[in-house]
Amino acid sequence: MASSVEEGSELLIYVDRRRKWIVRVERGKVFGSDRGTARHDDMIGREVGSSIELSAGFKAYLLRPLLIDYLERGFARRTQVLYPKDMGLILLLLGIGPGSRVLEAGIGSGFMTAVLANAVRPSGKVYAYEVREEFAEVALRNLRRVGLDRFVEVKIRDVKQGVEERDLDAALLDMPDPWDALGAVHEALRPSAPIVFFLPTASQVDKLLYRLREFGGFIDVRVFETLLREYRPVPGALRPETVMVGHTGYIVFARKVLKEGSS
Amino acid sequence: MASSVEEGSELLIYVDRRRKWIVRVERGKVFGSDRGTARHDDMIGREVGSSIELSAGFKAYLLRPLLIDYLERGFARRTQVLYPKDMGLILLLLGIGPGSRVLEAGIGSGFMTAVLANAVRPSGKVYAYEVREEFAEVALRNLRRVGLDRFVEVKIRDVKQGVEERDLDAALLDMPDPWDALGAVHEALRPSAPIVFFLPTASQVDKLLYRLREFGGFIDVRVFETLLREYRPVPGALRPETVMVGHTGYIVFARKVLKEGSS
Amino acid sequence: MASSVEEGSELLIYVDRRRKWIVRVERGKVFGSDRGTARHDDMIGREVGSSIELSAGFKAYLLRPLLIDYLERGFARRTQVLYPKDMGLILLLLGIGPGSRVLEAGIGSGFMTAVLANAVRPSGKVYAYEVREEFAEVALRNLRRVGLDRFVEVKIRDVKQGVEERDLDAALLDMPDPWDALGAVHEALRPSAPIVFFLPTASQVDKLLYRLREFGGFIDVRVFETLLREYRPVPGALRPETVMVGHTGYIVFARKVLKEGSS
Amino acid sequence: MASSVEEGSELLIYVDRRRKWIVRVERGKVFGSDRGTARHDDMIGREVGSSIELSAGFKAYLLRPLLIDYLERGFARRTQVLYPKDMGLILLLLGIGPGSRVLEAGIGSGFMTAVLANAVRPSGKVYAYEVREEFAEVALRNLRRVGLDRFVEVKIRDVKQGVEERDLDAALLDMPDPWDALGAVHEALRPSAPIVFFLPTASQVDKLLYRLREFGGFIDVRVFETLLREYRPVPGALRPETVMVGHTGYIVFARKVLKEGSS
Repeated sequence: MASSVEEGSELLIYVDRRRKWIVRVERGKVFGSDRGTARHDDMIGREVGSSIELSAGFKAYLLRPLLIDYLERGFARRTQVLYPKDMGLILLLLGIGPGSRVLEAGIGSGFMTAVLANAVRPSGKVYAYEVREEFAEVALRNLRRVGLDRFVEVKIRDVKQGVEERDLDAALLDMPDPWDALGAVHEALRPSAPIVFFLPTASQVDKLLYRLREFGGFIDVRVFETLLREYRPVPGALRPETVMVGHTGYIVFARKVLKEGSS
Repeated sequence: MASSVEEGSELLIYVDRRRKWIVRVERGKVFGSDRGTARHDDMIGREVGSSIELSAGFKAYLLRPLLIDYLERGFARRTQVLYPKDMGLILLLLGIGPGSRVLEAGIGSGFMTAVLANAVRPSGKVYAYEVREEFAEVALRNLRRVGLDRFVEVKIRDVKQGVEERDLDAALLDMPDPWDALGAVHEALRPSAPIVFFLPTASQVDKLLYRLREFGGFIDVRVFETLLREYRPVPGALRPETVMVGHTGYIVFARKVLKEGSS
Repeated sequence: MASSVEEGSELLIYVDRRRKWIVRVERGKVFGSDRGTARHDDMIGREVGSSIELSAGFKAYLLRPLLIDYLERGFARRTQVLYPKDMGLILLLLGIGPGSRVLEAGIGSGFMTAVLANAVRPSGKVYAYEVREEFAEVALRNLRRVGLDRFVEVKIRDVKQGVEERDLDAALLDMPDPWDALGAVHEALRPSAPIVFFLPTASQVDKLLYRLREFGGFIDVRVFETLLREYRPVPGALRPETVMVGHTGYIVFARKVLKEGSS
Repeated sequence: MASSVEEGSELLIYVDRRRKWIVRVERGKVFGSDRGTARHDDMIGREVGSSIELSAGFKAYLLRPLLIDYLERGFARRTQVLYPKDMGLILLLLGIGPGSRVLEAGIGSGFMTAVLANAVRPSGKVYAYEVREEFAEVALRNLRRVGLDRFVEVKIRDVKQGVEERDLDAALLDMPDPWDALGAVHEALRPSAPIVFFLPTASQVDKLLYRLREFGGFIDVRVFETLLREYRPVPGALRPETVMVGHTGYIVFARKVLKEGSS
């Protein structure tokens, strides 16, 4: 059972490890690269996973893009903070799955929103709070492109002013001053639910730790940092890349508990 | 809308960051720890997220365990290779979500199987090949405990002898000699589908890179390694833990393409 | 030109990578291990680099210990903070060599003192300030053992109360509150001289950065952290050790400049 | 006792952390930068550690360069492999100090040669073998600049063809095929002496481990890798740099022992 390249579908064109592009297939269009060109018309109907020859003689494979391909190169972006290395861990820490209802505050370009939406679909929902309207627009465009927008409710609203939902299963706060949102988010989460914070500086983490202790409604506080090394995949010459991403941010985890005297 | 501790449910009892236990609540049982004891009967009906006092005067919170709590301390284990730091990245690399059909070869104690099953449920399926019957049994017991066994089909079978499924969306090979399974797995995957290998030694990665080049049906080969640092969450004294896990294994990624002359 | 094992000399007895011992050779003594015993008398006169057979049949090599062997296993210790991974970098940052005069405040068990003394000998000197008399004693014993004590002047004295030396070439502060010693150390250093701080927590680093900015007499502030991974040296199965030291401390570097209005 | 900037001396001009330059002070010359200019004549006679004002109004400090400043920015380079993070550890592993006689094979641009020479001076010597004449020239020029050339004997010669020295205290091999030099270097080292290899790929390390086992004259084989993270030194916003050097090379350590049947 083969599947073939269709008009209007998204395609990952792969020439080599540094030459990968995501394109939307459209009749009449021409794909161009430093390795040669190819007409979209000549791709349509070809089997996914097969290769074509570019005008300059190089071979190009026609593949279905994964979500991670968009994260690495496909999405329009206005910022980039979270990387796949962090996203995977955060997904596990949030403990979510199909059907979960999740709060995300600070959605940036929607990268993590897409990962969350993919994890909770089809019956779950991501409530995405973002104060900067232009970010929300970019994020929505990105989500639409990968067909995940209907699992997300984007709100142009400051989470510090209050969260409208209740009994949420998890919350992710990617914002510079999450300590000011502790009360609002605590109210919106169901008891025992995990909360994850993403913070670029150690100074912010230190401050958050003080404020969490003071606030009292979150326990099991943990602080993580992930490092990802990519290797050059050359047989007989295996070695890490010379340059790597040394830091994106710290990941802080906690769980909601009932505050003394509340119910 | 509060939820309360029920008989037969799984509970995470939290005293402090080094004292967390997962227990199944049963009438008549007594929870014991170095911080005191508590009768299960006294927990039943309490609100999730509330705390009780242990016999020795320490406070213990009653929480719902997350999948990651089982991974860290709850599961019976016969081996431990994959860690949450790797699982999250692998999840992203496999590009799966609700509805995906995934091959897993070498399931160990079923930790990653649980993570995969949680990601593809309810309509997807994990086909879990394992040659060692006693591992399969432990894995199944773990999966049942978290209610994920019905999304997994465990097979006591060597993946190198052939995979029975076709058009799978992704494959994860956690076995010492995956190069001998390349043909069988290639046949089972749909074109363009990702394959991920998990290998403890650099020598194995080197060998796999040679064999992948020779085999020819997989492209976009990438090699990763993740490092996770946990910090002591003490305000005013933030610092990484002295000892960390320095290595679990290398993660190798590739995508299936059609081999020349095949269709 | 062979050299041989002499009475009174220090010997590294090597059986395998987990079995290495430093002993002082003495007539009449017996070396004992879980791999068998050997009489010191039978070692004396043997060529350095040769092997003997232990009573249980295992082979043991007779080697000259390096300073790093003492650091890893030979020294009596009351604390351990600095590791070889840090020591090497600190040595370079301090910019010292034979003839340099260095301040060290907080000498712990004298590990780093030994490294510094070895670098500045024979014409240089380490001025080692330590407030805890019992530490100073352990440190001196360790230094004597490796023959480096005559290049060190140990002072039971708080560096915050003032440094007696002037025009020092470099300073290393391994103490919990170095910000209170900035004035005293600044006065003791020659202009342009490097100063290095070693601090376990990020919170301390943050505080030091504030205090350095306030103080004004040090520039070119840099903050480092080193990670060392050791691999299992098995041909065909090369891989990092499972467990590693994840953190010892942060290394902060700066250089003395003249303060405004001073000369 | 102040020291002042002299004609002919080397000066580190520091404006901010991204703007540091090493210059040789010469009458009539003008220092130029994107932060303004200054006449060398106006620097001569100024106190080291003091500051001058550049033409554009920025303050510039006049400092004595450390060896590490040359390593980071001052030396002419034809290659760069070893970094300070590796150099420090190698120095400790080699166990050298004033008076040591060391072999270095593959000297590149002479960075490590300078570090070695600084450690063994004044009575020790570095025997530096290099097959590529143009590298040897660059290295010598760099060594002369920091006044360390007289502690180094550069030889345009392949170490695999034999080492002329005997009873050396240590050896450092920074070359792509060190396994072919094992015999020659073994002969040149005194028994028990450490040898260190620096290799960019894991595949090379694996091969070396096989060859060392086969060769038999070296024991206590260890494999290391160092990672150095630099932080942004901003009080209140402490965080690692986004991009870091992820890999330079693997460091392999061993010690010479007498081969069976030899003396």
